[in-house]
Amino acid sequence: MKIYFSGSIRGGQQDTDLYHELIKALKQYGTVLTEHIGSKKIDTNSSDQEIHDRDMKWVRESDIVIAEVTVPSLGVGYEIGRAIHLKKPIICLYRSINGKTTSAMIRGCSDLQCFEYAELNDAKTILKKFFTGNQ
Amino acid sequence: MKIYFSGSIRGGQQDTDLYHELIKALKQYGTVLTEHIGSKKIDTNSSDQEIHDRDMKWVRESDIVIAEVTVPSLGVGYEIGRAIHLKKPIICLYRSINGKTTSAMIRGCSDLQCFEYAELNDAKTILKKFFTGNQ
Repeated sequence: MKIYFSGSIRGGQQDTDLYHELIKALKQYGTVLTEHIGSKKIDTNSSDQEIHDRDMKWVRESDIVIAEVTVPSLGVGYEIGRAIHLKKPIICLYRSINGKTTSAMIRGCSDLQCFEYAELNDAKTILKKFFTGNQ
Repeated sequence: MKIYFSGSIRGGQQDTDLYHELIKALKQYGTVLTEHIGSKKIDTNSSDQEIHDRDMKWVRESDIVIAEVTVPSLGVGYEIGRAIHLKKPIICLYRSINGKTTSAMIRGCSDLQCFEYAELNDAKTILKKFFTGNQ
């Protein structure tokens, strides 16, 4: 099972530690192609085209896309839009912060499975249930 | 010429006045399907699914997508990702702010025409040149 984990980088890295924990949880269920999303180090050695083409190759190769969509991010939205046309199963996880929720284009898209959660452990439970069928 | 203008709403409305001016400029070249992006009023009467399905209908109907991609936004990224598969011509306009530039997934995508600009008038010149061939 190849898992593409998608989270904000240039849009804002305030959730990177959370991504790191989610990636750690996901590694129980398969290979996470995008472990670097859980690190604050930004790739400055690759050109934007190299980053784009590598990430799109990974989206194509993946069996499932898991996106954390709390922090607004062009790259995450872009990858979700592309993954829909590539017929990938897509799970979106988000928290509502100060009454603000995630994009209508994400929550309103019937091709996605969206789950709101409050704490890291709730997100882990959602993923466990999804991948193993157990609570 | 039907133009789909894409800009941030829930991701952050700090550029709404700029979107309003860009939409005003675009109306010289065709019908802008998404004039509401230039208004700070958020649609609270429609469900997320109604917003998503209406916007995707407009993306499909459009002859071109013009996205302002300075403010990180899931919806804008999503629309760009979908529009690529729908074979729409897509122009992305962005400013670099405090040394921060836009997403690698946008700048690095060879299916998009990306233009960096500094001031509103520069963006209008880019659009004029694109639509009329004149500086």
